[in-house]
Parts: sequence; structure tokens; C-alpha cells
Amino acid sequence: MTDAHSFREKVELAWQRSESLLCVGLDPRLELLPAPFEKDRDSVLEFCKTIVDATSEYACAFKPNHAFYAALGLEDELADLVEYIHNRYPVTPVVLDAKRGDIDSTAEQYAVEAFERYNVDAVTVNPFLGWDTVEPFLAWENRGVFVLCRTSNKGSAWLQTQPDIDPVYEQIAERVDALNNPNVGLVVGATNLEELREIRDYAPETLLLIPGVGIQGAQAVDVLETGCADDGREVLINVSRGIIHQDQSTNYLDSVTANAREYASQMTISS
Amino acid sequence: MTDAHSFREKVELAWQRSESLLCVGLDPRLELLPAPFEKDRDSVLEFCKTIVDATSEYACAFKPNHAFYAALGLEDELADLVEYIHNRYPVTPVVLDAKRGDIDSTAEQYAVEAFERYNVDAVTVNPFLGWDTVEPFLAWENRGVFVLCRTSNKGSAWLQTQPDIDPVYEQIAERVDALNNPNVGLVVGATNLEELREIRDYAPETLLLIPGVGIQGAQAVDVLETGCADDGREVLINVSRGIIHQDQSTNYLDSVTANAREYASQMTISS
Repeated sequence: MTDAHSFREKVELAWQRSESLLCVGLDPRLELLPAPFEKDRDSVLEFCKTIVDATSEYACAFKPNHAFYAALGLEDELADLVEYIHNRYPVTPVVLDAKRGDIDSTAEQYAVEAFERYNVDAVTVNPFLGWDTVEPFLAWENRGVFVLCRTSNKGSAWLQTQPDIDPVYEQIAERVDALNNPNVGLVVGATNLEELREIRDYAPETLLLIPGVGIQGAQAVDVLETGCADDGREVLINVSRGIIHQDQSTNYLDSVTANAREYASQMTISS
Repeated sequence: MTDAHSFREKVELAWQRSESLLCVGLDPRLELLPAPFEKDRDSVLEFCKTIVDATSEYACAFKPNHAFYAALGLEDELADLVEYIHNRYPVTPVVLDAKRGDIDSTAEQYAVEAFERYNVDAVTVNPFLGWDTVEPFLAWENRGVFVLCRTSNKGSAWLQTQPDIDPVYEQIAERVDALNNPNVGLVVGATNLEELREIRDYAPETLLLIPGVGIQGAQAVDVLETGCADDGREVLINVSRGIIHQDQSTNYLDSVTANAREYASQMTISS
């Protein structure tokens, strides 16, 4: 990002521009690359750029997941992709889904990775090692941080909830809420609506990054009703596979655009 | 690694060869690079290779932390460093400290990052999202996994222990112990000896990767007495700064070798 705007300011500008709460996940899978591309690592950057261009009208944010690039040794291409988005769509924030979690000077290095090496507007952080995992990222005042709070995968309850105590996710939500920092949000899975409602109660005004809509099973309408703040927004709803990998034909971009338009229409910002 | 040996087999061969439980952490800091090097990213790989050569006699493992390379965009150099170690010191395992933690197909991508892109023998994994975070790494049968269990940073108690319930770290230790898989271990900080003892009780035969000795304050003798299994080993004790960055002069390698020898002498394998 350029530092003309904070992460929060970019989110608001992007909401105005796109009129939607849709975040497009850029998680390219080689085996699902469409016909115009060879299914190899050299195709990934170009494919992702076409996705960005085809969905930018409908997206209020983009979210590449580091794992898909790292597995292929495409870290430089990821940095190029972020730069491409900044240049073409300067008010659309890029959230790096990296789930980093380390401490002290090592966490500082991960903040440099996110905010300098990749130059993203925001990053996801895993708080398991403690709040000192999160602090080095907060030192970058204009950048955003999403703290993992409650995920919706099958095994997630193991450490995120515990019998007989307040759930761990409640403690995380309250701590982030107490920061009262508009650049800091929470990652909350979409598939358990009751818990999403609880977390919204703990953190009434906090920005939530919500994966789980689309292929993963949650409905946008439910997520909006349950997850939005009183202002009818404060959520970024991520859809990845459901948009980018539904059609492997040469006309894949028609499908990509149609999917993005359809999801965005389900996630319109209420004014 | 070549797949001639499993991670566990390499650990045992490295113990025999080095007669020590010392793991050398390869966490290069630009500002602490010694006099022969420019303090810039182009020096890092060469500096790390000299550290490897100067300490290989005393080390039973090397542990690069991904953050220090990622911050500088040195992912390719990290892969080169791992290859250098495999070629020169084929029985010395390399543990990538990456603390990855994601789910499903994304966790699979992180396993590919660790075991193909970097070709390391073992990797550290953050279990906060659930046991399904760990499973995709276990699918690589001959490679090693260290599950974060209890860290010793100031903020670690926040989510790793909870009042009125069995500590989260106990649950992690018991789950890993129940696997009974010699390639799977735990990361346990060295500074709280009482908890280290508890964890050893929960997981009597599990390999523990233990940071915190040296600059971070713990004493090797205490860690050995408390952390070793009944066979007098089953620990890898990591020292990073205390070995690699104590001298910035042109003669830095004398200090590196002397430090490694001294730490190794405190961590001799009892036969």
C-alpha cells in the first residue's frame, strides 16, 4: 500500500466504490487453472491478475492466502500481484492471509514480511502464543491486523473452546474490542451462526473477516444478518473457490465475473 | 532431505555423531552480521553457511526460523541453505521453525512448502485451529512435526493455560504422546521448569524441541535434568543468538565455534 490511507480508510473507500462486503480470495490451485493456462507455476501470477481485473468492480478487498504461493515458491509473484492490485485498484485493500504467530523479534520479522516484503494493507495473525504475538504487528499504525478468533473447521473446538470456562474466542474478541482500533479486526468462521452472534456481541463495532461462505457451506444472507454491526457493515465476507475456480474452460472469466456479481449482490451494503 | 532416512532416524544418527543435544538456530539478523560481511540481504546465505560449517561438529540439528528469511525476501536462499546442509552434513536434520497453522487444503499447501519447497526434515506447527491443522503434515510419513505446546514468552499463559481447567498444553502433550509416532514432537519453552516437568510426565517418550537456553535465560543443566526422557535424551535444545551473533569482528568464527563447543559440552548425551 501507499501510506496515503490507513487500512481502515481504504476499507471504507472500497465499500463506497464496490457497494459490497465481498472479499475475493486469491487462492490459486494449479490443478484447477482454466484452459488458457498451462497447469504449472509460471501461470499463476497471470491467472490471478485476470481474476483481479474480472472481480474488482464487485470486491471491497482481495485476500491471497500465503500457503498457495509458498508451496510453489511463488513469493516474488505474490509480491508482484499485490503491487498490481495497488497500482490498478488503489482503494481496494489487500489482506494477506498468513496466520503468522511468533514472538518478540521474530514476530517483528513477520510484520516486516507482511508490510514491507509483500506491502499488504492487512494480515491475519494467530494469537496462540500470546498477545505479544500480535503487538509487533500493531506497531505498524496504518496497517491492519485480523486476529484469529473462531474458525469453523471440524477440529477447531479442541483449543478454541473448553468445557466449563468462557470460550477462548470470547477472550480474544473482548481483547481486540478493547483496543478500539479501527485497523484491528477478527477472523471468525461463518458456519456457526450462534457463535458468530456471540462474538458480535463481545465486539460490537469490530471489523470481522469471515470465511466460510460459498463452497464451505454458509449462506451470505445469514452471515450478514448475524455478523454485521449496527451500521450494517463491519464485515468482509470472503469467497475464494466459489468465484475463481468454478469453470476451467477458455471462457472462465465469464463465470468468474458472474459469480462475483452474484455474491456481491447478496452482500450489498445497506445504506 | 533425501528419503533414505526418516526424521527420527536422522536425529539418532546425528546424536551419535555429535554426542550432543544441541540444535543450532539459524536466525540471521542483518544488524548483527560480523565485519567480513556487508550488512545487507546479499550476505545472509554466505554468513549462514559459515555458521553451519563452524558448528556442524557440535550440532545434532539446525533450526532456521522462516521469519528471518521471509522478512528479507530470502526464501530461495533459505532453500539453498537447507540443500547446503543436506549435501555437506547428510545425517544432521534441519527443522524449519515456521509455526504454520491453517486447515484443510491450505494446511496441505504449507506441508508442501516445508517438505518440498524447503525440503526440510521437520517443521513446527501451531495447533490453535485444531488437530486438523496438524494432520496434513503427518501425512508425510518420514518427515517430522513439532507441535507448539507451551512457550515461555511473557504473554503465553493467556491462551495456553486457563484457570480452573486442565491446561491447554496438557491436552496438546497428551494428544501428541498418544500418536506414539517417533517423528512427531512438541515445542516446549525452557524457562518454566515446573511446566516442562509436567509436560514430560504427560508425554514420557516424546521428542521435545526446547528453545529458551542462552540469551533467553534458561540453564542447559536444568533443562536436561527436567526435560530428558528416561533414556537421557529425547530433547533438542535450541540456541541461536547465544552462538551465532556474539562477536561481530572478522574473527567471529572463533567465537561461534567456541560457543557451540561450550553449549554442546553442557548438553552431552549421557550413555
